[in-house]
Amino acid sequence: MSIKIGIMGYGNLGRGVEIAAAAASDMELVAVFTRRDPKSVKILTEGVSVVHADQVEQWTDKIDVLLICGGSATDLPVQTPKYARLFNVIDSFDTHARIPEHFANVDKAAKEGGKLAIISCGWDPGMFSLNRVYANAVLPDGEDYTFWGKGVSQGHSDAIRRIPGVKNAKQYTIPVESALEAVRSGSNPKLTTRDKHTRECFVVLEEGADPAAVEQAIVTMPNYFSDYDTTVHFISEEELLEQHSGMAHGGFVFRSGRTGVNGEHRHIIEYSLKLDSNPEFTTSVLVAYARAAYRLHSEGQVGCKTVLDIPPAALSPLSGEELRAHLL
Amino acid sequence: MSIKIGIMGYGNLGRGVEIAAAAASDMELVAVFTRRDPKSVKILTEGVSVVHADQVEQWTDKIDVLLICGGSATDLPVQTPKYARLFNVIDSFDTHARIPEHFANVDKAAKEGGKLAIISCGWDPGMFSLNRVYANAVLPDGEDYTFWGKGVSQGHSDAIRRIPGVKNAKQYTIPVESALEAVRSGSNPKLTTRDKHTRECFVVLEEGADPAAVEQAIVTMPNYFSDYDTTVHFISEEELLEQHSGMAHGGFVFRSGRTGVNGEHRHIIEYSLKLDSNPEFTTSVLVAYARAAYRLHSEGQVGCKTVLDIPPAALSPLSGEELRAHLL
Repeated sequence: MSIKIGIMGYGNLGRGVEIAAAAASDMELVAVFTRRDPKSVKILTEGVSVVHADQVEQWTDKIDVLLICGGSATDLPVQTPKYARLFNVIDSFDTHARIPEHFANVDKAAKEGGKLAIISCGWDPGMFSLNRVYANAVLPDGEDYTFWGKGVSQGHSDAIRRIPGVKNAKQYTIPVESALEAVRSGSNPKLTTRDKHTRECFVVLEEGADPAAVEQAIVTMPNYFSDYDTTVHFISEEELLEQHSGMAHGGFVFRSGRTGVNGEHRHIIEYSLKLDSNPEFTTSVLVAYARAAYRLHSEGQVGCKTVLDIPPAALSPLSGEELRAHLL
Repeated sequence: MSIKIGIMGYGNLGRGVEIAAAAASDMELVAVFTRRDPKSVKILTEGVSVVHADQVEQWTDKIDVLLICGGSATDLPVQTPKYARLFNVIDSFDTHARIPEHFANVDKAAKEGGKLAIISCGWDPGMFSLNRVYANAVLPDGEDYTFWGKGVSQGHSDAIRRIPGVKNAKQYTIPVESALEAVRSGSNPKLTTRDKHTRECFVVLEEGADPAAVEQAIVTMPNYFSDYDTTVHFISEEELLEQHSGMAHGGFVFRSGRTGVNGEHRHIIEYSLKLDSNPEFTTSVLVAYARAAYRLHSEGQVGCKTVLDIPPAALSPLSGEELRAHLL
């Protein structure tokens, strides 16, 4: 018997969930919900219904887990509490500062509906969070370091595109190799924002725009660029689309800790991701947590959870016996 | 209110638990149990009882979790089931092939006693197992790679010491850098035993022993050395004790996986440990799981568990609210 899933929203994430669910032996995609005209949405899987989002309530008894594939800025704060009353739900809410508030809203809704929600699944928050929590629990005396990249930052790319004279842009966040090496060495360096990451921008100008003015506007932009060493390249729109449309990303989580009577022993825990497709990896995480949501709800659990609350075994299609015999 | 712990067995692991418990804000060590004459055992912490192992039953109402610090070969298969009837227990049982049998024995005993046991805590099994399970759940289409070292293998050192003419020896397991790089590149190499690790031996000879014969006996030893590129160095006992008494270790767990409609996107997950003290890191893991055992037993859970069954949040002294606000 397979776990019946639905997808709410069919962009990069929705499509990624569709692909990840097809790769899972125990999942069956039964419907994709969209705010667009369903007739206009072509999905990859044959025989799966595409339904308007307004009709999702008619599917409550046909879907075990609904994976909500909206954006964190405006979609998820509304959608996840709304649908958590009706379905077990998974989201990838990634605005770290607003997680406590989102958690409270979703928890209330899920408890009212007798459903289970797992929020903020993905890699940061998500896999990186797990590694921070495990490593801090094991090495309470130590320092944490998180690096992101190399990968495109959507927020920084958007910030460049808002500058007058800019037609299009992509911005890569790049971890500084010497900073990574310093952390790996166990020297517990104090690293400033500038020490940890550089920013590289590929910019397409509007006709007649002044490159020097645009470059100045970028590199001095507070919060986004002024605290970083930033490189700006002006390229054609054609080159941007050809060379910079990839969705690769990644990053590193370190814990550098000490044990011993006098803290004389040093330990480095390093976790890293190198991802060809940020959305497809994110949705692979969502689908694994959909399996856990289904199982834990079947055991009677309700309310909002995060990846920190879920036993690792609940993510795996293998039984406890198989896991102990082969992966422990 | 702190969690009251006891230590069964006071060797490298017992001492490591003592150190890790002192570093934990919410733990109190109340007794160390030993099979030796308690008067002969000097521990680090002032005011803590050292008690003969035969008297452990008198401590059932004074200890929340007993950390069993024996060896996997002969101690733990007997001790963990025995004490799981009386206490919540933690062990570091690391004979992978015998985990299912050990699990069954401990589960039966713990359920009979109404106690919770968490077995096979440490780093492999332990932190490495967690990473294998998470990565396999997220990337079902892919390959696993585990490398160990650089670090001393006790089993291989013992095997050398059993060769006639050998007075003392240490053997380092060393991952092959080019194999690590091949895995990181995403090329999913097929690696033989010889491709993955080399073995380096530091050997002290008995007087009059023939170095060529000893070297030949080492490098041709089936199971232990014949499948590896092995280097043998003959040194003095003094040099062995001075240069090779460290307990550093470490290793790498990789998952190299594919996603996409045609598996066109590649993802590399890498987890690595670089440990100055293998026993102190292992016992830091044991202590974190002791916290989880106390909490889950307080919630009514009994029987045998492994790290795969424990929600990450249960390991942390921080509350759910604190974790969501700061580490998620």
